[in-house]
Amino acid sequence: MVRINLLVLATAAISPIVSASVWPLPKEQSLGTQVAWLDGKAKFHVKYGPAGNQSHTYKYTRDAETSRVTRRKTSKKGLAETRIDAAIDRTKSYLYNDNLIPWMFHKKGSDWQPQYDKKTAIVIKSISVTQTDPEPDNTLDQPIDESYTLTIDKVNDREAAVVITGKTSTGVLHGLTSLSQLFYTDDSSNKKKGVYTPYLPVSITDSPRFPHRGINLDVARSFYPVQNIKSLIDTLSWNKMNTLHIHITESQSWPLEIKSMPDLAAKGAYTKYQIYSVRDIDDIYSYAALRGIRVIMEIDMPGHTASIAYSRPELIANFNHQPWTGFCAQPPCGQLKLNSPAVDKFVEDLFKELLPRLKSSGAGYFHAGGDEYNTNSAQFDETVGSNEPSVVLPKLQRFVSKVHKEILDAGFTPIAWEEMLLEFPLDLDPRVIIQAWIDNESVKKVVDKGHRVIFGNYKNWYLDCGFGFWLDVTPEKFGQLAPAFTDYCSPMKNWKAIYYYDALDGIPEDKLHLVLGGEVHMWSEQVDGQILDARVWPRASAAAEVLWSWNRDESGEYRTQLSVTPRLALMRERMVARGVQASLVTQGWCLQNPGDCQY
Amino acid sequence: MVRINLLVLATAAISPIVSASVWPLPKEQSLGTQVAWLDGKAKFHVKYGPAGNQSHTYKYTRDAETSRVTRRKTSKKGLAETRIDAAIDRTKSYLYNDNLIPWMFHKKGSDWQPQYDKKTAIVIKSISVTQTDPEPDNTLDQPIDESYTLTIDKVNDREAAVVITGKTSTGVLHGLTSLSQLFYTDDSSNKKKGVYTPYLPVSITDSPRFPHRGINLDVARSFYPVQNIKSLIDTLSWNKMNTLHIHITESQSWPLEIKSMPDLAAKGAYTKYQIYSVRDIDDIYSYAALRGIRVIMEIDMPGHTASIAYSRPELIANFNHQPWTGFCAQPPCGQLKLNSPAVDKFVEDLFKELLPRLKSSGAGYFHAGGDEYNTNSAQFDETVGSNEPSVVLPKLQRFVSKVHKEILDAGFTPIAWEEMLLEFPLDLDPRVIIQAWIDNESVKKVVDKGHRVIFGNYKNWYLDCGFGFWLDVTPEKFGQLAPAFTDYCSPMKNWKAIYYYDALDGIPEDKLHLVLGGEVHMWSEQVDGQILDARVWPRASAAAEVLWSWNRDESGEYRTQLSVTPRLALMRERMVARGVQASLVTQGWCLQNPGDCQY
Repeated sequence: MVRINLLVLATAAISPIVSASVWPLPKEQSLGTQVAWLDGKAKFHVKYGPAGNQSHTYKYTRDAETSRVTRRKTSKKGLAETRIDAAIDRTKSYLYNDNLIPWMFHKKGSDWQPQYDKKTAIVIKSISVTQTDPEPDNTLDQPIDESYTLTIDKVNDREAAVVITGKTSTGVLHGLTSLSQLFYTDDSSNKKKGVYTPYLPVSITDSPRFPHRGINLDVARSFYPVQNIKSLIDTLSWNKMNTLHIHITESQSWPLEIKSMPDLAAKGAYTKYQIYSVRDIDDIYSYAALRGIRVIMEIDMPGHTASIAYSRPELIANFNHQPWTGFCAQPPCGQLKLNSPAVDKFVEDLFKELLPRLKSSGAGYFHAGGDEYNTNSAQFDETVGSNEPSVVLPKLQRFVSKVHKEILDAGFTPIAWEEMLLEFPLDLDPRVIIQAWIDNESVKKVVDKGHRVIFGNYKNWYLDCGFGFWLDVTPEKFGQLAPAFTDYCSPMKNWKAIYYYDALDGIPEDKLHLVLGGEVHMWSEQVDGQILDARVWPRASAAAEVLWSWNRDESGEYRTQLSVTPRLALMRERMVARGVQASLVTQGWCLQNPGDCQY
Repeated sequence: MVRINLLVLATAAISPIVSASVWPLPKEQSLGTQVAWLDGKAKFHVKYGPAGNQSHTYKYTRDAETSRVTRRKTSKKGLAETRIDAAIDRTKSYLYNDNLIPWMFHKKGSDWQPQYDKKTAIVIKSISVTQTDPEPDNTLDQPIDESYTLTIDKVNDREAAVVITGKTSTGVLHGLTSLSQLFYTDDSSNKKKGVYTPYLPVSITDSPRFPHRGINLDVARSFYPVQNIKSLIDTLSWNKMNTLHIHITESQSWPLEIKSMPDLAAKGAYTKYQIYSVRDIDDIYSYAALRGIRVIMEIDMPGHTASIAYSRPELIANFNHQPWTGFCAQPPCGQLKLNSPAVDKFVEDLFKELLPRLKSSGAGYFHAGGDEYNTNSAQFDETVGSNEPSVVLPKLQRFVSKVHKEILDAGFTPIAWEEMLLEFPLDLDPRVIIQAWIDNESVKKVVDKGHRVIFGNYKNWYLDCGFGFWLDVTPEKFGQLAPAFTDYCSPMKNWKAIYYYDALDGIPEDKLHLVLGGEVHMWSEQVDGQILDARVWPRASAAAEVLWSWNRDESGEYRTQLSVTPRLALMRERMVARGVQASLVTQGWCLQNPGDCQY
C-alpha cells in the first residue's frame, strides 16, 4: 500500500507554513490540514435572496472578448443576481487559472506537494452560494452589510462541499473572493486533477472593521487608460476594498468629457487620446459595480483647477503664476474665482450634466475636493481682491456651500478635503464627509466637530512619497536638496509603515462610529499606468487588511510581522498569478524559513 | 499654395522642445530643424571592415519566434558581421514600430506635428553603415573603441541619407542605437508615410567617457527568468551600457547549473524551475554579445555562499547561525571554509567546468566576489578556529590568492569587491580590478593602491535602497524602527541622486585612467522580474549618461535639470515604446511647459 503511505506522508508534509491564505485576515476562521481537490466538475448552486431594490434592476452584460460591461436599464435581472453570476464566472477562472504553486512557503527539498490518489482523494463536488437578504440600495449613504460565511467540509469520506452565504451580493462577492484564495495548483504529476486546498475543513465568518476601504487615484496629473483602471478595480476587489476614489481633474489636465462643454477636455486634456469619454466613465462605474466597488468621482475645486483655463481662462484666477512658490502647492497655479457668476454657472452646468449620469450609474457619493486653496492667489482673483482671510473666508464659504448644496440636492453625499472644515474653517453641512490627509490630529479634529471622516494621511498612506523631488531644482537651490533630492514626504511608505499606522490614535470611544475608514493615495506626479501595479501593490493590500481586519489582534497588540509577512507575501503571489505586477515583499529564502529573517 | 504654407508653418512649429533626443548625450552633436521622412523603403548598405579576429568566427542565428539566439562555432560569418546584421534588423524594427508620438514635449493645443506633403517631403532613401577597422578581441582586458559617427543630411532637395561609421562593430551598434532614437511617429493623417526625424541635418561624433558601464543584477536572492535578463540586456544596449554583471549565486539560492555537480543547483536553487541551465547561460551570453553587452558572471566567495550547504554542508562554516546579527550581513549566515582541501577541490572543479564554458562564450572577466567576509563567523570554521584578524587574514589571503590565480590562469581578469583590498587588507595581483561599493573614499583608496576600479556605492547607486526594512522586526526592536521602517541605505536613490553623483571626487588627475567606470546595483531582497523594469529604469539611464557623457558640461558645471529632465523623460518614453515598464520622470504638464516646474 505504497500509495496510502505516500498520501499520509504528503498530508503531514503539507501542514501549511502559511496558516491563513485569505487576505485580509478574516474576522474568525478555522482551517484544517486535510487536502481537498477541485477538478473542474464542481457544480455551482446559486440561490438569490428576496428581490433586490427595484431601482437597481439593471442588466449588466459583459463582452467576453473585450471584457467591456454594458448596462441595460430595463433588464429583468437585478444588480444582485447579475453581480453574483459574474462573480462566479470570475471565481471559476481564478480557481482554475491562478496556477499558484506556493513553493516559497516550504523549505527547500521538502516534499510538500499533496499526491492525488484517485481512490482516496476528497473531491469538492458542490459550491453553493446564497444571498439571504434583500439587496440594499447602494446609492444611499448607509453602510452595506458586507459580512459572509464560507465553509468547506466533507459531506462523506470522498466528497466535500463549499457553502457561501452573504446577506447582500457584496457579502457573497467577498465570500467568493475568499474561496478563490484557498486553492493552489499542484505541479507534481496531477495537473489534470485540478487544484487543491490544504485547509479542509474550512470555516470562516467574516465582516469588515470599517465600511469605507479605498484608494484615491489621481488620473489627471498622469492619464491612465481605462484598462489600467479596470485592472485596479479587480485588484481592489481581491483585497476586499470597496472604494475607488478617482481624482479625475487637476491643474495639469482635464481628461473628463463633458458633452455640454466639449472644449473642457478637448483643450484641457493632455491629448485627444487622453480623455475619459462618457462611455468610458459609464464603463468604469459598471465594471466596478459588478465587483463590489463603488466609484467616487472627485472634481477638485476651487483649487487644483488650472486646466479649466485652457478652455475658459475667464474662470481661473492667477493661472500659472511664476515663480509659483507661495501661490499654489505645485505648478501650475490657478483656482476658480470665488465670487463669479460665470464660475457659478460653470459649476451648475457641469453638475447638471455629470451628477445625473453618475446617479444612474449607481453612485451615492461625490467628492468636491477643497484641498490647498491658496489665499495668496486669491488677491489675483478680482472677485475677491485680497489675501486677507477676513475677506477671502466669506467668499470661500459662499462658494463651497453652494457647491455642496448642489451635490446634496442631486441626491449625493458630498465629500470634502479637511482644509475646508479645519483650516479656514468653514461651516459645512453636517452630512458632508471629511477626508483627512494631513495627520492623525486632523481625524480627531474632524470627529470633534461631529463630521464623519475618512483617514489616510501623507505621513503614512501616500503611495507616491519617497520617490524623489520631481521638480527641476535650480542651481541656486541645488545645495539645499543635493545629494539625496528627497521629496516633502520622504521616506517611501513601505508596507510596514502602512500596516502599523494607528489611524484611531486619540479618537474617543464615543466618536469611533464617525470614522468611516480610510484611503491610500496614489498621486501621479511620478506615476502612470506603466508602473501603477508596482507602486500600489502590495502596499495597498497592507492598508486593505488594516481597514478590513484592523492591525491589532484580539489582545490589542499589533500583529507581529511573523504573522503578517508570509500572508502578505502569499497575497502578492496571488495577485501576480492574476497578472498584477506587484512589488516583492521579501526574498524567497525568508519565506521558506519563517523566523530566520528576524531583526 | 496652401500646402506650402502649411508645410512652412509645421516646420516652424515643430522646432523641438527636446533639443537632443539621443540618450546618453553624444559627445558632439549638431541637430537642425528640418523634417525628413523614412517610409519603409530606405535601403541599408552595409560595409564591413577588415576581417575580424578569427577566434570569433561564430555564427549567431536568431529564431524569430522565440528570439532565442543560437551560436554555431563553424560559421563563416564573423562576430562583427553577425552583430551588425542583427543590429540592423533590430534598428529597422525600432524605427518602424516604436510608434512614439512625443506629445508631452509640446504645449497643449499647439500644432506641432509635421505635415507630410508628397510633393515637397524630404525622404531618407539610404542608410549606409560601415565598420572601418578590424574587430578587436572582446575577451582581452583592454578597452574597445566604441566611437561612432552618425550623419543625416540631404543629398538633394527631396532626398536625404544616413551615414554611420564605427571602428568596431560595437561602435557601429551604438551608431544604430542613436539612429533609432531620432525618429518619431506622426499620428496626424500620414501613418502610412512612415516615421520622421525633425532634426535634419544631423551630425553626431560620439564616444564614451568610461569604458566600463554596467549594472549588477542579483539573480540569486530572487530568480529572474531568462526573458527578464534578455529584456534587461536590450534596454542596457539602448542606453549604451556595455556590461551586465550577473551576481549569480548567493546564500539564499544557487540557481546555476554545474553539470559536474548537478546537486549544487538541484538542492541549492529555490525550485527546479529556478535554475539557469548551461544552455540558458550560453543563451544569455550570446544574446548579450549580439547587442554589444559583455556579461560578467560573479560567483561571490568566500562569503555569501550558504546555499552551497544545501548540497555540501561540509564546505560551509556557520550555516544559518541564529540569531544571525554579528555573524553575517543578512540571513542565512554561512561562508566557505578558508583552509579546507575539500573547498579547494570544490572551487577547482567549479572553475574547471565553468570558466572554459564562459571563455568560449567570449567572456574576458570573471568576478570572484569577496564582500562582507565575516571574521566572527570564522571562529566556527574549524579550518580557521578564531575570529582574530591575525589568524583569519593569512587563511583568507591564501584562499583568495588561489582563487584569483585560477581565474587568471584560465585567461580571465578577476574582479573583486573592495573589502579584499581595503578592509583586511590582502595582497592582490595587480591585474585584479576592484569593485568599490561603500563610498567615494574607497575609489580613491583603490587607485592609490594602483588597482583599477569600478565605482557605484550604496549611498548613491544602489537601486534597491529606500524601499523599506525587509527583515521581520521583532516586537522588541519595533520601537527602534517604527513608524518609518526605513532600510540602512534609505532614502531611495532617485534619478537626480544618481545623476549628480560625483564619482571622481578626490581622484587625482594621474590616477583617473584607473577608474574604468561604474555599475548601478540591483540587489534582489525586494525585487523580482515583476517589477525589475520599474526599479531599474530610468534610474539606470541616469547612470548610463554619467558613464557615457559624464554629468558635467564643458565648463565643468553639472548639467542643469532643465537640460536633463526632458531628455531623460523622452528616453523613458522611448523605452516604454519598446515594452519596458520604466518609471515616470515627471508629470506631462511639466514637460509641456519647460521651465515652469522649477524650484
